[in-house]
Amino acid sequence: MSDLSRNTYSDVASGDTSFHEHLSDRAFITAILEFEAALADAAADAGHITLESARAAHDAINATELDLDAVAAASAAGGNPTIPLVADLKKRAGDANGIHVGATSQDAIDTALVLCLRRAGRVLDTRLGDVVKLLSDLATTHRDTPVMGRTLGQQALPTTFGVIAAGWLEAVRESARQLGLALEALPVQYAGATGNLVDTHPRGIDVHDRLAASLGLASRPLVWHTNRLPLVSVGLAAAQVAGAVRKIAGDVIASSATEIAEVAEATPGGSSSMPHKANPAAAVACDGYARRTPGLAATLLDTLDCRWQRGTGSWHAEWQTIREIFAATASAVNRIHASLDGLRVHTETMAQRTTGDHTGHAAEITDLILEGDHR
Amino acid sequence: MSDLSRNTYSDVASGDTSFHEHLSDRAFITAILEFEAALADAAADAGHITLESARAAHDAINATELDLDAVAAASAAGGNPTIPLVADLKKRAGDANGIHVGATSQDAIDTALVLCLRRAGRVLDTRLGDVVKLLSDLATTHRDTPVMGRTLGQQALPTTFGVIAAGWLEAVRESARQLGLALEALPVQYAGATGNLVDTHPRGIDVHDRLAASLGLASRPLVWHTNRLPLVSVGLAAAQVAGAVRKIAGDVIASSATEIAEVAEATPGGSSSMPHKANPAAAVACDGYARRTPGLAATLLDTLDCRWQRGTGSWHAEWQTIREIFAATASAVNRIHASLDGLRVHTETMAQRTTGDHTGHAAEITDLILEGDHR
Amino acid sequence: MSDLSRNTYSDVASGDTSFHEHLSDRAFITAILEFEAALADAAADAGHITLESARAAHDAINATELDLDAVAAASAAGGNPTIPLVADLKKRAGDANGIHVGATSQDAIDTALVLCLRRAGRVLDTRLGDVVKLLSDLATTHRDTPVMGRTLGQQALPTTFGVIAAGWLEAVRESARQLGLALEALPVQYAGATGNLVDTHPRGIDVHDRLAASLGLASRPLVWHTNRLPLVSVGLAAAQVAGAVRKIAGDVIASSATEIAEVAEATPGGSSSMPHKANPAAAVACDGYARRTPGLAATLLDTLDCRWQRGTGSWHAEWQTIREIFAATASAVNRIHASLDGLRVHTETMAQRTTGDHTGHAAEITDLILEGDHR
Amino acid sequence: MSDLSRNTYSDVASGDTSFHEHLSDRAFITAILEFEAALADAAADAGHITLESARAAHDAINATELDLDAVAAASAAGGNPTIPLVADLKKRAGDANGIHVGATSQDAIDTALVLCLRRAGRVLDTRLGDVVKLLSDLATTHRDTPVMGRTLGQQALPTTFGVIAAGWLEAVRESARQLGLALEALPVQYAGATGNLVDTHPRGIDVHDRLAASLGLASRPLVWHTNRLPLVSVGLAAAQVAGAVRKIAGDVIASSATEIAEVAEATPGGSSSMPHKANPAAAVACDGYARRTPGLAATLLDTLDCRWQRGTGSWHAEWQTIREIFAATASAVNRIHASLDGLRVHTETMAQRTTGDHTGHAAEITDLILEGDHR
Repeated sequence: MSDLSRNTYSDVASGDTSFHEHLSDRAFITAILEFEAALADAAADAGHITLESARAAHDAINATELDLDAVAAASAAGGNPTIPLVADLKKRAGDANGIHVGATSQDAIDTALVLCLRRAGRVLDTRLGDVVKLLSDLATTHRDTPVMGRTLGQQALPTTFGVIAAGWLEAVRESARQLGLALEALPVQYAGATGNLVDTHPRGIDVHDRLAASLGLASRPLVWHTNRLPLVSVGLAAAQVAGAVRKIAGDVIASSATEIAEVAEATPGGSSSMPHKANPAAAVACDGYARRTPGLAATLLDTLDCRWQRGTGSWHAEWQTIREIFAATASAVNRIHASLDGLRVHTETMAQRTTGDHTGHAAEITDLILEGDHR
Repeated sequence: MSDLSRNTYSDVASGDTSFHEHLSDRAFITAILEFEAALADAAADAGHITLESARAAHDAINATELDLDAVAAASAAGGNPTIPLVADLKKRAGDANGIHVGATSQDAIDTALVLCLRRAGRVLDTRLGDVVKLLSDLATTHRDTPVMGRTLGQQALPTTFGVIAAGWLEAVRESARQLGLALEALPVQYAGATGNLVDTHPRGIDVHDRLAASLGLASRPLVWHTNRLPLVSVGLAAAQVAGAVRKIAGDVIASSATEIAEVAEATPGGSSSMPHKANPAAAVACDGYARRTPGLAATLLDTLDCRWQRGTGSWHAEWQTIREIFAATASAVNRIHASLDGLRVHTETMAQRTTGDHTGHAAEITDLILEGDHR
Repeated sequence: MSDLSRNTYSDVASGDTSFHEHLSDRAFITAILEFEAALADAAADAGHITLESARAAHDAINATELDLDAVAAASAAGGNPTIPLVADLKKRAGDANGIHVGATSQDAIDTALVLCLRRAGRVLDTRLGDVVKLLSDLATTHRDTPVMGRTLGQQALPTTFGVIAAGWLEAVRESARQLGLALEALPVQYAGATGNLVDTHPRGIDVHDRLAASLGLASRPLVWHTNRLPLVSVGLAAAQVAGAVRKIAGDVIASSATEIAEVAEATPGGSSSMPHKANPAAAVACDGYARRTPGLAATLLDTLDCRWQRGTGSWHAEWQTIREIFAATASAVNRIHASLDGLRVHTETMAQRTTGDHTGHAAEITDLILEGDHR
Repeated sequence: MSDLSRNTYSDVASGDTSFHEHLSDRAFITAILEFEAALADAAADAGHITLESARAAHDAINATELDLDAVAAASAAGGNPTIPLVADLKKRAGDANGIHVGATSQDAIDTALVLCLRRAGRVLDTRLGDVVKLLSDLATTHRDTPVMGRTLGQQALPTTFGVIAAGWLEAVRESARQLGLALEALPVQYAGATGNLVDTHPRGIDVHDRLAASLGLASRPLVWHTNRLPLVSVGLAAAQVAGAVRKIAGDVIASSATEIAEVAEATPGGSSSMPHKANPAAAVACDGYARRTPGLAATLLDTLDCRWQRGTGSWHAEWQTIREIFAATASAVNRIHASLDGLRVHTETMAQRTTGDHTGHAAEITDLILEGDHR
């Protein structure tokens, strides 16, 4: 395999790649084969092809040993990886009737991306749950810990560290909720060359719905070749998650400043030249990943404009972009977890700066957020 | 008033400014006064101030004649318009107890922006309803009109113009639905200097909830000074609407090309030098407005990162950006309406290019979309 | 005039609108008339029209009283303001031969935008010179002032405040230099409907070059209807200036933090609720303006993709975007000037935190930068 | 090595990876070692360390076998790869005096990125030269080939295909020129922990300048740890190149439409479902790569805002982003080359649509551009 990766460093350095593995080129191309296998079954179940054809398709798929570089090189001519993969499967299967039944390249690629995102999403959801737990604990523990609130960079009035942590929690929980909904809504793509399932008519919608069911994907919108809202929505939702954790990272960095020193990461980073440094390295890395998402989100929004029945470049731009948004978000979540895990809260330093302990409704608001009140 | 507008041309040229009027500086600053009036009432209702103080506040507010330039100039010192407005109200009111009760600048500004967006959103919703109607009619009328589907810019296989229009419809309807939900979720902001309602304690949450109710806004999250998801979500939803109509505009432009000539705007645009031109000017203008939204959305996502208890610049960047996203989206919607209203569909030209009339499940899919099937 | 402005607040609150006046809709539309006047002269000088026709054109132009709302409303049909303006001039001039000679709408609009940017650029250049002066003074004054260098938010090793200010200076100076070059390179646009000057052939290029000379604009590229590099380059250069001053603003905000307190704005901002606050309000506002430019730059880069001989939406998206980048940059520069003007530098606080006075090459590097060394 | 790549598919499918190889994680990390080796020499030449120490450093570096995954995993703690690499080198070298002399992590990383970009830039420059040659040939061959000019998607007036190709050429050539200048200006980074070369004082600047010379890099700005203009400028210049070729791709796609058919790629792409399709697949892929750059450019512009003496996340976000902009640009250039190489120009189809052959100054303008006239 060629060594062109610009991701290894980035992904591995986030501390956990169980998420990113679902977003790799290998995962992506493998999911195209999964689509083909599931499609053969759905077409057979719907009575559009014989069981024998389906079996032949499975055999051909199972016999495929993916050489990613070769697939990629062969993709250049047609501009997408499905074309050489399908050509290869058809060659390999004695009976080609079960290969790519009534499908177009975009059906395979879109569904493959959706499968990747769903799987990555599940891992991310678990990790976000861990972050939510850390934040809930922080809010609970420090429900009554006084700290100076700061506005425009200046000390303002006392509040509690609990309500600050609860605010972090609320944003993470809500953005995670929105991401979950968008992931849940991700549909299968199966609509044929121009989006009317002509090749499997009159069983096309039946095949479509069986395919959706077998892959555990939503079945509507039925055709979204050039209605990219499902993918765009999920990407924007991920970027919101990244923004929510970036806010925490920035606060941890600012509150860790030598002169402020109200929090400190449990295992701060060192320096290549200054042994005395104790950097909030996990929070810094979190910010570094997360701040890549707004620009990627702009690219994704731009892909809503696709021409006629197949985007001319807009679609192709999605393949990297949607995976990058997810990968950067996941890395940011990983690092904020590392930053918050065992976070040292210097309550005495905080207390010294607050005069009086009147913190208004801080504790009540903390409780409301902890209870998940969404009136 | 100073003549610094860079919007007049843009907004007025979109054909309808009933939307934009809710987004102007005047509307924004006026809504700050509305917030102050409603807050005085809520505080009185909650028993935190006397009815007399509330009345004095109302009198001061009613007596205010907004000089936007003066407010703006006075805003430079503190970096926000609430400071001079409140100072002025307090001077004017004999009894200042009812002015800005327990509030901070951000409470007034955020709520004012939310009121502007809600009102603009209502107008936009109506106009989107008109577009949905035009698209439904197109899809219904052309349910069985054959046309060549085109992928990667090339003729591919026959489909129907109905299913193409239905695809446009589905994206507009879904993005409008998401925008509606985000608008509905927009909350009041009222949390005091550092977000714990200390100045109105123990009646702070009561005042907050009364204020939300009287302004017709959501009441959660209770504090979102530095959890900007509500505003970001609504901005991203608007950008999705813009992308959905831009897709239609691009298809109208492409299908209006002299050599393709399958559709034509009812009242095409002229040229300053070529009298024979019949340009799809409304669709072109739609694209011009809509394609400004991805970049604005990136700016908005970046504002999720705000420091401590008040964004240092991130918050200030929202004031223009969220209104621009909405204004550009509304202008794009206005122009796509003009483009689609009376759109000429050259069915004979379409028919000449299609051989056979087998269009698979096109009609069925059209029907499903028209029925709003979302299984 | 309609009251749809979303800019008044923003521009006026930046403290100086001498820049923004060149970017307004009025300035833009007026510059279209300037183009027409200069074109009539150039065409007459080149012998393509008679002096009488040129005079008639001038009379018609001089007699025009701009009603911006009316122009804007009339622009909706054709999607650009030149069409109604030219139609009006032709009606008004008895002899219409001198109106819009051999030009297309884009010639007038692009040249008008260029004139606006050039004029705004001159004002901005002066203001940037003022900022450079403030920064040079800071660097000179504090050439030997010890301060703790901070990396990743933590105290690292001692350095000088002079070399920090010199670093700010170097970025502002270099970005200003790049902006100056891009402004200088802005060309006239005059190429006719499809970019070959067919209507003024064989005198077209002569007219073009005379027009460039009389307006003081560059004359190459000769045609840039769909080669948008000149405008994009100048917009990106402005965004770099915004980024350079934003860096300073962020450092001022961070170093003004209550616990750090190494610098303070001379006239800090107040609060609507906390009289004791002394906010770095000018720096905060600077950041608020500047951080809007990366997203706008993305939109501008996207306009490089324009179709055939006239952008279909991409061109139209420029009109607002390029003016917004400039306006936001100018406002950011205004506010950093306010932030730095009289900036209080607490050298004792700085000194207390540094042990020893070994600051390496800091003073030397400061001197090199002050001398403008660019080896 | 872990298989997390999201680039293999993208890079390899662009047809040539000689560019991308300089941007990989391996190239990046290897260049850090190159920096360390060159630094040891420069420090010895300047008399700051002994030749023996330099030799020991070389031995340690040469003995290093890079395990990228291990480096990446070890980078998580401190948030950058230099820390574990340097720790490892110091352990390996008996005499550690020649390792990382007076440097900070950012010195190594910035210089490594600069080396990667310079090398990739040289390959890109060659490829851009090839594209310029193809475009020059097109413009020369079709200097007098009549074709309908098209504005707003509609036929307008006749022009020549030569002047259209010359317009493409002018934008590619100018953007390539700007990129070349930005690459040439890329400086070495060597400034020590807080940017004053304290550890190598008084020989710091001497070491710096020797290092720049030996690596063939510019030597000013002397310190740019938090003045990111050099990197941002080069990234924006690359994005402009991407935009310039994307314009061509879009025109090729549009002019290849079945009904227009004025050009066709020499080796068009096929389809997974429609054997009759002849897609302008190279142009489509070019667009797909290029349209990712505006969003990446927005991220890059945002990195200008970095805090104090070391960006807290802004710096970290550059490492992927700058390489992605370059990689996407290079892939876009590769594909436009494939699209233009042997492009079929259907002059008869073009001629049928033009009436008369009066094309104004088209040929003259073509000649001016071919001569590289920049008056």
